[in-house]
Amino acid sequence: MHITILGGGGFLGRKLAARLAREGQLDGRRVTALTLFDLNTPVPPAEAPFPIRTLAGDVTDRAALAEAIPPQTEVIFHLAAVVSAAAEADFDLGMKVNLHGTLAVLDTCRTLPKPPRVVFTSSVASFGGGQGAMVPDDGRQVPANSYGAQKAIGELLLQDASRRGFLDAVCIRLPTVMVRPGRPNKAASSFVSAVLREPLLGLPATCPVEEDFAVWICSPRRAVEWFLYAATMDTAPLGLDRGINPPGASVSVAQMLAALPQEARRLVSFVPDTTIQAIVSGWPAAFTAERARRLGFSEQEPLTEVVRAFIEDDLEATRAERATG
Amino acid sequence: MHITILGGGGFLGRKLAARLAREGQLDGRRVTALTLFDLNTPVPPAEAPFPIRTLAGDVTDRAALAEAIPPQTEVIFHLAAVVSAAAEADFDLGMKVNLHGTLAVLDTCRTLPKPPRVVFTSSVASFGGGQGAMVPDDGRQVPANSYGAQKAIGELLLQDASRRGFLDAVCIRLPTVMVRPGRPNKAASSFVSAVLREPLLGLPATCPVEEDFAVWICSPRRAVEWFLYAATMDTAPLGLDRGINPPGASVSVAQMLAALPQEARRLVSFVPDTTIQAIVSGWPAAFTAERARRLGFSEQEPLTEVVRAFIEDDLEATRAERATG
Ligand SMILES: NC(=O)c1ccc[n+]([C@@H]2O[C@H](COP(=O)([O-])OP(=O)(O)OC[C@H]3O[C@@H](n4cnc5c(N)ncnc54)[C@H](O)[C@@H]3O)[C@@H](O)[C@H]2O)c1
Ligand SMILES: NC(=O)c1ccc[n+]([C@@H]2O[C@H](COP(=O)([O-])OP(=O)(O)OC[C@H]3O[C@@H](n4cnc5c(N)ncnc54)[C@H](O)[C@@H]3O)[C@@H](O)[C@H]2O)c1
Repeated sequence: MHITILGGGGFLGRKLAARLAREGQLDGRRVTALTLFDLNTPVPPAEAPFPIRTLAGDVTDRAALAEAIPPQTEVIFHLAAVVSAAAEADFDLGMKVNLHGTLAVLDTCRTLPKPPRVVFTSSVASFGGGQGAMVPDDGRQVPANSYGAQKAIGELLLQDASRRGFLDAVCIRLPTVMVRPGRPNKAASSFVSAVLREPLLGLPATCPVEEDFAVWICSPRRAVEWFLYAATMDTAPLGLDRGINPPGASVSVAQMLAALPQEARRLVSFVPDTTIQAIVSGWPAAFTAERARRLGFSEQEPLTEVVRAFIEDDLEATRAERATG
Repeated sequence: MHITILGGGGFLGRKLAARLAREGQLDGRRVTALTLFDLNTPVPPAEAPFPIRTLAGDVTDRAALAEAIPPQTEVIFHLAAVVSAAAEADFDLGMKVNLHGTLAVLDTCRTLPKPPRVVFTSSVASFGGGQGAMVPDDGRQVPANSYGAQKAIGELLLQDASRRGFLDAVCIRLPTVMVRPGRPNKAASSFVSAVLREPLLGLPATCPVEEDFAVWICSPRRAVEWFLYAATMDTAPLGLDRGINPPGASVSVAQMLAALPQEARRLVSFVPDTTIQAIVSGWPAAFTAERARRLGFSEQEPLTEVVRAFIEDDLEATRAERATG
């Protein structure tokens, strides 16, 4: 089985590549080749039981994509994106990568001899609703930001392309993924990971929202589980509707902090930030996710496990990066 | 007030141009110039109290659009489209005109000194649901055809562009407009107009569905009313959500036939067509349309009036066209 990860150098792309390298197979079939494609040449997993190609290129460049997606490709993970804050800051860049990039993926798929499975990472940012909302499976996407609009458009494109048989898409509307390694950044969601990650590194963190503020989250391990499931699931039961609200978890800041060791918890202070509050208060904090459960998508693990997995998978690397960078 | 109609040579574009020419004003303000833009040079209304430019060009051609939308433009009616059956038959053509055409309109609007009002004609074809459905105002669009997908994408683009202040859009999800002049054609919806139009011309017509089959319709006069209202309404109450399900009417074939004079009614015969039935049975037959009513969109007039208006506005011209063509 030939697999390509577009955006294979990013946070989730690297996690996914590492998992594939560890397993060597997908749903019982051997992985025979993996291509990692990103703006900069992605760093491949250290060891893998199959050859890995790493390519640098732009997802909007059709020639580069043709190289990244050879004719035998059976599964494409389309994770390449300009994320939320960047797409809001630079409309043209967001449109280019998130809209025209997805169009280029669609065009490339049409040249393949067999319609590939495409796993597309959409986002809860395509929904509004706010703290009080419990988004049902047929909830309408009325995005409050350009990134969310571009993701909702990507879903419509891939849905119609699936109906026409150009490809076979599953669009996962990812929750906010935490704990994200790296540094605090300007994204409004930065605090969601920072209030766990920084204290675990022994560093102080500030929380800009109240303790009872709730977020719809998943762990990177869970996101990867969902990607693998979406890559091989039977898509017939999906019918026309290729959009999935996966079973994440609605967690409050208080619950997040309770998952930290006590000495770490004391490193978090509450410093209200009305700008951030104005943005994040529009995010829906919970989804019913009944359809995804019925379709076989697995449940988000408890927060204590999320924290343990971060310590296991990412703490050392994050610490090392901070020390050198 | 400078106004441009893209698709100004089409069925509804011509009706809209004629109405503007008759009124000379929009919401109390004088129309000072009208541009009609279409693939072929549109035929302007016979008389108008303002200058009319007629331009031939492609809506995907940015230079042609810049010409069609001069800097002073305050209102753009974006009606240019490859319609349902054609967009299904030719995916690339539909994408080109319905997606990239709308992107070109968006880009052109960004060059104007003041964000123009854009009235966009979306379609009930962007919804599924079928005969039993009563689509609520927050109903999700899961299109069952490429045209519907492209219209839903157009809405998302214009909605986000409105939020960013590039333009100020109102997207009207038009019902099936009847009575459409012209000849019966291959569109699955062709019969909706044909069962009224053909008998009124003294010609036989066949109906491919049962008598109790219901369609969500509006008249061309009503569509034009909604266009004019959308062109000047206060958009603040719309918030992020620029999509409108206007108050059309759910009518059965039996009700349609009952609106015909008795001698005309006898010209309609029922010849079941399972191919057409399979397509049209997926169309939602009714919408709540509460939000549109609250926002001030006017009510669809009764069917007898729709028939009378067709006789008044279009019967002679349709007859003449048949005689010569
Ligand atoms: N992490 C989250 O919380 C979250 C939540 C919802 C959705 N998502 C989506 O999941 C996917 C992966 O997210 P992530 O957290 O790994 O993000 P990331 O930013 O770490 O990875 C995205 C990758 O795409 C690459 N990319 C950007 N522009 C490109 C271009 N023009 N050509 C090729 N590659 C390009 C980037 O270089 C980056 O490596 C994205 O599509 C994102 O929108 C993530
Ligand atoms: N009539 C209906 O029942 C109905 C229902 C729902 C939505 N709509 C929408 O309302 C609008 C008007 O519908 P109509 O019934 O007048 O359709 P129409 O086909 O009569 O008019 C559309 C016009 O767009 C023009 N056009 C097509 N491609 C173009 C291009 N590349 N550049 C410039 N012009 C181009 C066509 O030449 C045509 O004159 C369309 O956007 C349609 O999708 C119509």
